[in-house]
Amino acid sequence: MKKILLTVLLTALPALAWGGDELPTPLNNAAAINLVQEHANYLWTLVAATLVFFMQAGFAMVEAGFTRAKNSVNIMMKNLMDFSMGSIAFYTIGFGLMFGATNTGWFGTSDFFLSGWSPDGDPWVLAFWMFQCVFAATAATIVSGAMAERTKFTSYLIYSLFLCAFIYPIFGSWAWGSLLNGSGWLEKLGFIDFAGSTVVHSVGGWAALAGAIVLGPRIGKYGPKGEVRAIPGHNIPIAALGVFILWMGWFGFNPGSTTTADKSIAMIFVNTNMSAAAGAILAMITSWAMFKKPDVGMSLNGALAGLVGITAGCANVGPLSSIIIGAIAGVLVVISVVTIDRMHIDDPVGAVSVHGVCGAWGTLAAGLFNMGGTTIKIISTQLIGIGAAFIWAFGVAFILFKVIDLTVGLRVSEKEEMEGLDIGEHGANAYHDFVTTK
Amino acid sequence: MKKILLTVLLTALPALAWGGDELPTPLNNAAAINLVQEHANYLWTLVAATLVFFMQAGFAMVEAGFTRAKNSVNIMMKNLMDFSMGSIAFYTIGFGLMFGATNTGWFGTSDFFLSGWSPDGDPWVLAFWMFQCVFAATAATIVSGAMAERTKFTSYLIYSLFLCAFIYPIFGSWAWGSLLNGSGWLEKLGFIDFAGSTVVHSVGGWAALAGAIVLGPRIGKYGPKGEVRAIPGHNIPIAALGVFILWMGWFGFNPGSTTTADKSIAMIFVNTNMSAAAGAILAMITSWAMFKKPDVGMSLNGALAGLVGITAGCANVGPLSSIIIGAIAGVLVVISVVTIDRMHIDDPVGAVSVHGVCGAWGTLAAGLFNMGGTTIKIISTQLIGIGAAFIWAFGVAFILFKVIDLTVGLRVSEKEEMEGLDIGEHGANAYHDFVTTK
Amino acid sequence: MKKILLTVLLTALPALAWGGDELPTPLNNAAAINLVQEHANYLWTLVAATLVFFMQAGFAMVEAGFTRAKNSVNIMMKNLMDFSMGSIAFYTIGFGLMFGATNTGWFGTSDFFLSGWSPDGDPWVLAFWMFQCVFAATAATIVSGAMAERTKFTSYLIYSLFLCAFIYPIFGSWAWGSLLNGSGWLEKLGFIDFAGSTVVHSVGGWAALAGAIVLGPRIGKYGPKGEVRAIPGHNIPIAALGVFILWMGWFGFNPGSTTTADKSIAMIFVNTNMSAAAGAILAMITSWAMFKKPDVGMSLNGALAGLVGITAGCANVGPLSSIIIGAIAGVLVVISVVTIDRMHIDDPVGAVSVHGVCGAWGTLAAGLFNMGGTTIKIISTQLIGIGAAFIWAFGVAFILFKVIDLTVGLRVSEKEEMEGLDIGEHGANAYHDFVTTK
Repeated sequence: MKKILLTVLLTALPALAWGGDELPTPLNNAAAINLVQEHANYLWTLVAATLVFFMQAGFAMVEAGFTRAKNSVNIMMKNLMDFSMGSIAFYTIGFGLMFGATNTGWFGTSDFFLSGWSPDGDPWVLAFWMFQCVFAATAATIVSGAMAERTKFTSYLIYSLFLCAFIYPIFGSWAWGSLLNGSGWLEKLGFIDFAGSTVVHSVGGWAALAGAIVLGPRIGKYGPKGEVRAIPGHNIPIAALGVFILWMGWFGFNPGSTTTADKSIAMIFVNTNMSAAAGAILAMITSWAMFKKPDVGMSLNGALAGLVGITAGCANVGPLSSIIIGAIAGVLVVISVVTIDRMHIDDPVGAVSVHGVCGAWGTLAAGLFNMGGTTIKIISTQLIGIGAAFIWAFGVAFILFKVIDLTVGLRVSEKEEMEGLDIGEHGANAYHDFVTTK
Repeated sequence: MKKILLTVLLTALPALAWGGDELPTPLNNAAAINLVQEHANYLWTLVAATLVFFMQAGFAMVEAGFTRAKNSVNIMMKNLMDFSMGSIAFYTIGFGLMFGATNTGWFGTSDFFLSGWSPDGDPWVLAFWMFQCVFAATAATIVSGAMAERTKFTSYLIYSLFLCAFIYPIFGSWAWGSLLNGSGWLEKLGFIDFAGSTVVHSVGGWAALAGAIVLGPRIGKYGPKGEVRAIPGHNIPIAALGVFILWMGWFGFNPGSTTTADKSIAMIFVNTNMSAAAGAILAMITSWAMFKKPDVGMSLNGALAGLVGITAGCANVGPLSSIIIGAIAGVLVVISVVTIDRMHIDDPVGAVSVHGVCGAWGTLAAGLFNMGGTTIKIISTQLIGIGAAFIWAFGVAFILFKVIDLTVGLRVSEKEEMEGLDIGEHGANAYHDFVTTK
Repeated sequence: MKKILLTVLLTALPALAWGGDELPTPLNNAAAINLVQEHANYLWTLVAATLVFFMQAGFAMVEAGFTRAKNSVNIMMKNLMDFSMGSIAFYTIGFGLMFGATNTGWFGTSDFFLSGWSPDGDPWVLAFWMFQCVFAATAATIVSGAMAERTKFTSYLIYSLFLCAFIYPIFGSWAWGSLLNGSGWLEKLGFIDFAGSTVVHSVGGWAALAGAIVLGPRIGKYGPKGEVRAIPGHNIPIAALGVFILWMGWFGFNPGSTTTADKSIAMIFVNTNMSAAAGAILAMITSWAMFKKPDVGMSLNGALAGLVGITAGCANVGPLSSIIIGAIAGVLVVISVVTIDRMHIDDPVGAVSVHGVCGAWGTLAAGLFNMGGTTIKIISTQLIGIGAAFIWAFGVAFILFKVIDLTVGLRVSEKEEMEGLDIGEHGANAYHDFVTTK
């Protein structure tokens, strides 16, 4: 630690870009200015990555809080492991498929194992990788919620690896292109998805939908006459903490997607905040109108709906548009949760509605509310991207879950589900000293 | 995401402020240097805003942890909504009243709906707005604690909106002036309140006092002979987590108030930390002396007392003074909590003592311990500011709460209070799977 | 707040380093460039310090979650106080011993009470102090876990002060030297410990080992025939939250140790993340093989093991090496926890294994996987540092705990231990509204 420190302290006029003998000139000063700006870019990209990383804790708290105490250990393990395994999968395979310098037009074919970096080379690829890695893991963790309380742990690990290694990065390459050459087909069409309403959230949400369908509902969720029964969450304070953590993390997710420390991040911050606020308020009002009381689960999901909704357009719509986008997302998420439940698709935390549906809405909204004006072409491109994400993510994930189901098996036994996955899968009790009702 | 990235990567010597044809000169280099510094200012202001935003989670955890399980959902809803509605209120009205470019001398009269910003204009107003918005919401959330466990949710929403739209910004305009022209009357007197011991914390604390008085105490808080009964909190680990979150958030709150990335933030960091540490230690010792055991609630509040206490003077006192300021705040908060309780004003979390009383102390201390020396004029100006905050915030809030009480009603029914607000207001149970004692 | 803001807004071309009359020249431009870089260094160092501060919340949650409900208040008090008292101790004594400008060769003899700083002087020492202070407190808090559920609170306070004031800073001065002159003896040998696998973690871990030995095991931990009994933790979701917080905090701990905003932080971020991920995965697999189920406590500790393991070498090994280092740490932590338990040393949270053992491993690995190649001399220097840390930290802490034990007493009464320290030490109940099993 010390050597670097002394360099800072002892050099009254340190030579940033010119040598000791060289005098400062406009030209080497210009190089030094660019170097300082680059340092700011590294700083911002990596601080933003830190905030996005922390979203893993937010997802873990939301998912555990909204489900039953007897499955909490399993949820912690899934969230820990999808990030850990996802990091390794994105390092070995995913990043290369998504951003590889050479590519087939459909995915990259180089830069696996971070091979584009060498100790003497430009370290920017490492900063960029770090930011992209926490994004990939976010997509994976979304699925966890929709499949909570009944999925085999081993099967979850397989799926999670596959999403970070293949499903997410291949779609990502279509929309965000490759790092060093060319770009994906959606990008070339002009598809707008600044921070990933579609690339991250819808991809995660539609995979979650496939998982929830293949798994089937939790025991007791739907009555003998098909009536929908509520299975309440067990810890609302930690669920709310999770939402606050996610909201904070989104201040890395959206403005960090600039990967540049410039003035444009200010509007992205404001947009992100306004949409989340409007989403929470409108979801509360909608739930109040539908259920006669302001519902905490819906209000919390409303904030997330607003955040997902503004993710695509955060850099190309204004603050007032952001309020409208978030407000509509807040209404949409309540309607979607109720509708999906009536279709007997059991999504314990509302992940499909929050990430899939509001991700699609946000992607469309990025075209509709574009500050520079909108056109049929813009809208149709957005719709193509939305459709491509659904077909790809739902389709491939559906096949994947079916294959897992037919081989290792996707779902735990009925006995284990009743007892809780904590005992069956992990031999543990999340709340050992408390008397619980089941 | 990609286009910006490529710009960074492909330009070996990017032209920050000069065109492609132009060669670097001392003059355009100077402009470029200033631009990079501005980027750092944006970065710092917005990262600090992120930390201050997260204080909402801290307040939610502290408030829930220090109160009863049966009201936890209500507390989460209040904290989510005061930030969400506060954001919208500060966008539509509050910011204009506080920082409007034109003003009456008592409040601003322009810049509502962020109208001072246009897509082609300077985005600094957006960064500044974001930082100010999280401050406004902090003032609102302080009141929530003092009014916990007995306030109607609808009434809380009305009050919360009013505080972010009017009470906070009007006082704020007196002390922190308007963005583009002139300044408030307290500012002109030389009032020192760098990050808001008075502007944010006392204003919130005195409004909380008004709320607690108008509401009256919780059922069972004071016995038939007037004896004070403890109503213990239900979750000390999350309360402690909340305090750690708030402490971290204060590293955005105080040094972020520079809204500039310069060297002055270092002393503000150290001062903030020392005062919090001293506050926690002295509150522990004081509680130990008074109650024979080191009390966890008092110790945690002592850290917050130290943080509130150093907020006004964090940029104009030294580290040793900060320790003294925090230590006195730590003693003061314990005495204040006990005294307010004896006055039969029921403040479940000690918000009035932490924010009102220690905010006033901190504002006085900013004058007393001023590094450049103190004078009667400095002290009297500080006292004028302290007094003005009390008269304004307590007075207006008292009227507001009385009006709400006489119209929609401020307090829930006795039956609902006994059952818990979670069931009555939200039809929910925060801890569904746990056996609770109520 | 305002004055600084106006400065930013009103000066279209502010003079950062040249006066109003002076025109920009290459020379004063060069000074201005360095000033902006310095601002970035302050920003990064202090944001990183904020992240490291938050690790206190992580440690508190991990420690409470892995132990019993009846001791949770005590754990919160210990974590609050070791940071608070540690801050004061490091201000008054510790920093001077570790970084004092004059020194004996074994420790510094000046710069107590931050006397190296004056209001007119360079504020860098304040930024550096802040970063070092949160490190010192980390070392102290590690011990808390190994001594949980049976240590007298008063004795803990004494010990904690002593560690932040003497044990940690004296060893620190050997490895990280003094701020303004010379350097420690380990440093001169070429000892590699970039962010403190040994300086912070092993020192904390070996002191924890001494504490656990002097204290003896918790009642009921080992059966009459010497069999090891599990005492399960009471709140796995907050333990997992704590691990996520720690992982995030490590993104300040390791890359922040540059105390410079430059490109080198990118590799340190990636290394930190890869090692943590590999540690979690391998600990899970190891526990799965040994106990037939993937264990949540081991997996969470595996992530921490990976983080501790990469702390020494994060700046001088590559990403692939980081994966290997983390993976070995993940296996090692499981074996170590089981072995220490079999030795009848009761470490409730595995602190000795995570911080002591994996800290030693990480320090060795920093030599073994050095990007520039390794030599017998490098390895032997690493081993000398590892050995010195053990002898110093274990030895001095052992004597300290023995002295405390023989004077004020180190351990609570049997009755108090059975009832829980929350009642005995603090007259409180962490979960007042819940029905608990003991």
